[in-house]
Amino acid sequence: MENNFVVKGDICYSSSRNTIETFKDSYLVVKNNICEGVYEVLPSEFKDFTLYDYTNKLVMPGMIDLHIHAPQYSYRGNGMDLELLDWLDRYTFKEEAKYKDDKYALDYYTVFANRMKKSATTRVSIFGTRHKNASLILMDLMEKTGLISYVGKLNMDRDCPDYLRETTLESKTETINWILESKNRNYKNTKPIVTPRFIPSVTDEMLFELKNIVKDYKTAVQSHLSENPSEIEYVKELTPYAKFYGDAYDRFNLLGRVHEDNTLVPTIMAHCVYSNEEEIKLLKDNQVFVAHCPSSNLNVASGIAPIKKYLDLGLNIGLGSDVAGGETESIFKQIVDAIKSSKMYYRYVDSNYKGLTFEEGFYLATLSGGKFFGKCGSFMKGYDADIVVIDDNGYTNPNEFSIINRLEKAVYFNLDENHLIAKFVHGNKII
Amino acid sequence: MENNFVVKGDICYSSSRNTIETFKDSYLVVKNNICEGVYEVLPSEFKDFTLYDYTNKLVMPGMIDLHIHAPQYSYRGNGMDLELLDWLDRYTFKEEAKYKDDKYALDYYTVFANRMKKSATTRVSIFGTRHKNASLILMDLMEKTGLISYVGKLNMDRDCPDYLRETTLESKTETINWILESKNRNYKNTKPIVTPRFIPSVTDEMLFELKNIVKDYKTAVQSHLSENPSEIEYVKELTPYAKFYGDAYDRFNLLGRVHEDNTLVPTIMAHCVYSNEEEIKLLKDNQVFVAHCPSSNLNVASGIAPIKKYLDLGLNIGLGSDVAGGETESIFKQIVDAIKSSKMYYRYVDSNYKGLTFEEGFYLATLSGGKFFGKCGSFMKGYDADIVVIDDNGYTNPNEFSIINRLEKAVYFNLDENHLIAKFVHGNKII
Repeated sequence: MENNFVVKGDICYSSSRNTIETFKDSYLVVKNNICEGVYEVLPSEFKDFTLYDYTNKLVMPGMIDLHIHAPQYSYRGNGMDLELLDWLDRYTFKEEAKYKDDKYALDYYTVFANRMKKSATTRVSIFGTRHKNASLILMDLMEKTGLISYVGKLNMDRDCPDYLRETTLESKTETINWILESKNRNYKNTKPIVTPRFIPSVTDEMLFELKNIVKDYKTAVQSHLSENPSEIEYVKELTPYAKFYGDAYDRFNLLGRVHEDNTLVPTIMAHCVYSNEEEIKLLKDNQVFVAHCPSSNLNVASGIAPIKKYLDLGLNIGLGSDVAGGETESIFKQIVDAIKSSKMYYRYVDSNYKGLTFEEGFYLATLSGGKFFGKCGSFMKGYDADIVVIDDNGYTNPNEFSIINRLEKAVYFNLDENHLIAKFVHGNKII
Repeated sequence: MENNFVVKGDICYSSSRNTIETFKDSYLVVKNNICEGVYEVLPSEFKDFTLYDYTNKLVMPGMIDLHIHAPQYSYRGNGMDLELLDWLDRYTFKEEAKYKDDKYALDYYTVFANRMKKSATTRVSIFGTRHKNASLILMDLMEKTGLISYVGKLNMDRDCPDYLRETTLESKTETINWILESKNRNYKNTKPIVTPRFIPSVTDEMLFELKNIVKDYKTAVQSHLSENPSEIEYVKELTPYAKFYGDAYDRFNLLGRVHEDNTLVPTIMAHCVYSNEEEIKLLKDNQVFVAHCPSSNLNVASGIAPIKKYLDLGLNIGLGSDVAGGETESIFKQIVDAIKSSKMYYRYVDSNYKGLTFEEGFYLATLSGGKFFGKCGSFMKGYDADIVVIDDNGYTNPNEFSIINRLEKAVYFNLDENHLIAKFVHGNKII
């Protein structure tokens, strides 16, 4: 639908890594679903546009979540004192197996989709389970939310419990059928994304099949990379031919580039906590998006990714909630944990490394991560109108605060959880 | 008031460092404000007690906050990307100076006290400012909340902006007058606590005066200790006679023990991130309470206190929100950040160090910190009836979860912020 409208309020958005633009009591004009401009006085040519009046409320771009596991939503916030591989065994695999049952998938994914709709997130890249039907159910539900999302049916043909493992052939066939069926459903906002769970879960044969699938169906790709020291050691054993973890994906064109014709494939790699210099260079050259998931990296004791360094090097980076390694879908919380953990990197790993600023945290959550989806995550002219409105009344005390201070408070107090009062995705009002 | 009553619900409490007791749909009996026992079936002798029915809700002990700065509440969640000493200069001192004005103090402390009342905290030790009147206003307001609290007028006779500094004589006189006036007000639940801000802010002369004040008026003591590397370096310069930071307090009987007669003084030292072996031994010998403030230690880039080690050594420890170094008064959030940061200690400082378990985090927040106030922070027989009730309905999904899993979720989702539906302090219902 082509929407023209105006949103009035206290407006803020990133225009670069170091700059958050703020406009007190101003007008954001949206023309054909695209940001036209922000004005302190509404120009007369837009007087006929529908006006949404959120005076005194914070108006900001929607959050971008580059990494979340939908089937893990039910047990988020549990087992948070375990380490990655223990936690997968104790919680994850058992729960994911239940999505073989379509009814279970519908019930649980409904809870997930409802919550995503109410969150401040407007665009998201999602891991499902290895089940084709459940993944289609999830796509149906996400389409209904109005969010723009990528959804991945997982590939898992090794090294997981028998009850969850696919054969390589089965995984290939199901993946192709899933892509075809999802295309038949003519979603407007929901796309399939090829999703090998991580190297331990997929054989070389599977990676080879996925290489062809990505080429044939022109899909994006997402997976996990260099998350945890014990995982990385294990990947070394599994792929003796690879120079480093990311190289194992890259040999099968699954790290952002089809080597045969040198074209790029939109790709997200979650974590990259321990990427070495070669891996970092490859991520940059192939324009891969790093999904930085700080809550998860703290919770499952993975470590701290040197995000400031990645920003300096010009890598593509966004934030990921990584539910249920992360305890919540709140991207505000990821901003906070990104800043907090960057300070421990400074303190314990590299005293020349400066912690992330608030401006950088907000940039990662919006404009920077948004690049994966196109022009979104900002209100600069020409950007998609993804807008959320937060009511921070009651959190400002007797003081008058600047918009930037109010924004920082809103983020640190997690007001995305209960204080979101309006939400637009690509110019469509969904809340 | 002598209160006899019964609270029904899903009950949980720490009985030791490693054990959270849980009772589904059970009865907590309170007799004369003291916990009598928890029963699955209500014994007939208590049938006449008032019954508060919180079926399906989580019933747990109140949280203990061993360290919070009331005047910093207004700017909590701001400047969170600075380091300690910068942050003090940029935000703290300017704001604290305003409490010279009684009207300002009344307005802002009212906001603070109201929020503390609504929080899950039942007992708290508070830093005010250096102003006597403002500190008494804060005590009046805290008394009205029904919480049990210690409140400290700060001593600051050096190394802070002129507009905030007291002379040593003024600081001494004002401290004595403040203690006397607070005693005249006959508070039931509110006590003065001697509060040298930290070594940089107090001269040796001042410490000597405080030594006498503590002896003469039999007060408790609170301060900061070994928080941040640059602070510690600075303290070394200021106190060349001291063997280590804590020794500077100890020489003036301000670290838990009156050396002349070997009696103990109830004492809280916030942070202790970098305490050396000698300092740790002294903290233990003198039974000082370490207020572990993990959010603050992350926010102002201080570091990670080795709390698991302190627990192993048998130190007294509780949690502190340390608003506004910490962004919120939520002690649930401190549990989460304590666990998260302990994992980074494991990852980056000592691979033999295990991260804190959830049981340990909850224990720190309740039973362990509660020891500072006497027998509280648990529902074991004989403990003070400090009770909070959290409605976690809507956070459990279609699944049935155990009480322990629900408790972990409630803590990780910060449900103390908006889902507290009842609160008792020493058997008195205040919400």
